[in-house]
Amino acid sequence: DGGILDCPVVTLDDIARSDAIVFGAPTRHGRLAPELSAFFDKLSTFHDEGCALKGKIGSAFTEVGGPGQGCGGHEAALVTIHALFLQHGMVTVGAPPLPTLEATPNASVFGTALRSTAKSGAAGAALDLESNSLTLRVRELNEAEVKIAYAQGEWVSLIAKQLYDDGE
Amino acid sequence: DGGILDCPVVTLDDIARSDAIVFGAPTRHGRLAPELSAFFDKLSTFHDEGCALKGKIGSAFTEVGGPGQGCGGHEAALVTIHALFLQHGMVTVGAPPLPTLEATPNASVFGTALRSTAKSGAAGAALDLESNSLTLRVRELNEAEVKIAYAQGEWVSLIAKQLYDDGE
Amino acid sequence: DGGILDCPVVTLDDIARSDAIVFGAPTRHGRLAPELSAFFDKLSTFHDEGCALKGKIGSAFTEVGGPGQGCGGHEAALVTIHALFLQHGMVTVGAPPLPTLEATPNASVFGTALRSTAKSGAAGAALDLESNSLTLRVRELNEAEVKIAYAQGEWVSLIAKQLYDDGE
Amino acid sequence: DGGILDCPVVTLDDIARSDAIVFGAPTRHGRLAPELSAFFDKLSTFHDEGCALKGKIGSAFTEVGGPGQGCGGHEAALVTIHALFLQHGMVTVGAPPLPTLEATPNASVFGTALRSTAKSGAAGAALDLESNSLTLRVRELNEAEVKIAYAQGEWVSLIAKQLYDDGE
Repeated sequence: DGGILDCPVVTLDDIARSDAIVFGAPTRHGRLAPELSAFFDKLSTFHDEGCALKGKIGSAFTEVGGPGQGCGGHEAALVTIHALFLQHGMVTVGAPPLPTLEATPNASVFGTALRSTAKSGAAGAALDLESNSLTLRVRELNEAEVKIAYAQGEWVSLIAKQLYDDGE
Repeated sequence: DGGILDCPVVTLDDIARSDAIVFGAPTRHGRLAPELSAFFDKLSTFHDEGCALKGKIGSAFTEVGGPGQGCGGHEAALVTIHALFLQHGMVTVGAPPLPTLEATPNASVFGTALRSTAKSGAAGAALDLESNSLTLRVRELNEAEVKIAYAQGEWVSLIAKQLYDDGE
Repeated sequence: DGGILDCPVVTLDDIARSDAIVFGAPTRHGRLAPELSAFFDKLSTFHDEGCALKGKIGSAFTEVGGPGQGCGGHEAALVTIHALFLQHGMVTVGAPPLPTLEATPNASVFGTALRSTAKSGAAGAALDLESNSLTLRVRELNEAEVKIAYAQGEWVSLIAKQLYDDGE
Repeated sequence: DGGILDCPVVTLDDIARSDAIVFGAPTRHGRLAPELSAFFDKLSTFHDEGCALKGKIGSAFTEVGGPGQGCGGHEAALVTIHALFLQHGMVTVGAPPLPTLEATPNASVFGTALRSTAKSGAAGAALDLESNSLTLRVRELNEAEVKIAYAQGEWVSLIAKQLYDDGE
């Protein structure tokens, strides 16, 4: 049983095996959510043991806004994740420039940023434990956000393939 | 004659006389426009001469987006202006929290941020020199942006009054 | 019994009663320590309930470096705390400009930053639980750091007095 | 004649031809020097014309401190350059983690940062035009700074080779 979200939990082994790592976490009052920040502390092991993440590709996405989550700060949250990449000698990749970015409010070349609305609730952070339900408060991604997210994923894998795939 | 915009140009004397200073400049590809940055270099004089700006109130606003201006970075531009304030020992004030902020895309507690659109052109940066016209390419501020700008101005003057007005 | 450090633990009531709040936390691999970030989440209550922290003065200090703590990022940690202040409508104050700042490595006008050294261990974070001892691994502050810290404290209280003391 | 410094001036063509670009500029009162920022404005051409810099590698170095230059802000200057890279869809590379970084004041994984001292003057910015001399006011790099700069250069070229060299 994987819990309410029923999704696999990433381990340090998963990270050690990967060529590219994409982290996502909500923005909380203008900063990276402490839950991901606490997880980052565990990655210090890699730093101490010969910088095992050096040269891997890193990319980040976030979510911003919603009731009680403050206003803005999504690029600050993304830059905080990018700083982690640089500390480990990783290579930072953002969302590739595309016209959709310029036409979408709160979009950022630093990484995909889902904008929560007052109506929809704080997506990604809000769990209704009583009804064991997540979907009630998470709004669906709009078309532009999906497009940017896909473009970022494609871009990361393209760079990773180029950097690490020896063509065998 | 004040030129195309026909507005007064701020002098170092104006700044020395003021209790509160509000700087505004467009965001260019994720950073503060170099024109304001170059003006900031001139303020070094105040730093060298006994930190003459120490204790003054500083606040900032910006504009983001539009064709060829990149995407996002408005909070980065505002933080760059706030860093200038801290270098001079000034006191930093943002846009006060109000519900309008949370409901407006790209709004920021760091300071008012006008969002330019692809359709409207890069407000604040675009001058049509041939027709000697600015209005053609600058869109009007929407209601939410005006509200946030007024709230920020009020907030700055309230803090300034409290900090410097001796009630005479 | 206050635990190993035997120091009082700040409550939300303490914060509500204060005119000025100075937060300090170590920098971890280029970002604010998650422990303080998690504490910041609790302050959302103030945001929801009429922005109860609005107009209070905020200032920050940090610690940077030491084995396994990465390198740099102290200003990023301080800016993250400043962002919290702006989210709550607080007024941000840094370390006032003084010659000691310019002569001290890693000093910042954003706030006092103690530099830990590889030899001394990660000050502020390292507890030897077995011997119930903190002093073994925390180096003493050097003269310049003490001077900057005092100047920041004095500066915060001066602004607070000016802003809130009605002279009675 | 290349002027006082007698060094070649980079053109937009040079940039278009390169696989990796390393920008350097002094930190001025906590922000990127406006001269480089103004040069960045010219790169908008590449953005408009099909994002011609997309996929190139970007890296940055800076200089911080010295009389009248304020205090700190070198990582802010480096992050501003990194933001430019992300705006153009470039891939960001810092200084690789190495023990020298942790032992050197003001060193940063974001990029090499030369620390100027009050005694030596503002390196990189100071030109004595009367005597047509630069060396009088620029101090020599210390051993640690040279080591970090070389490591960053090597690291950039290694990633570039991996990403773009087809082995012919």
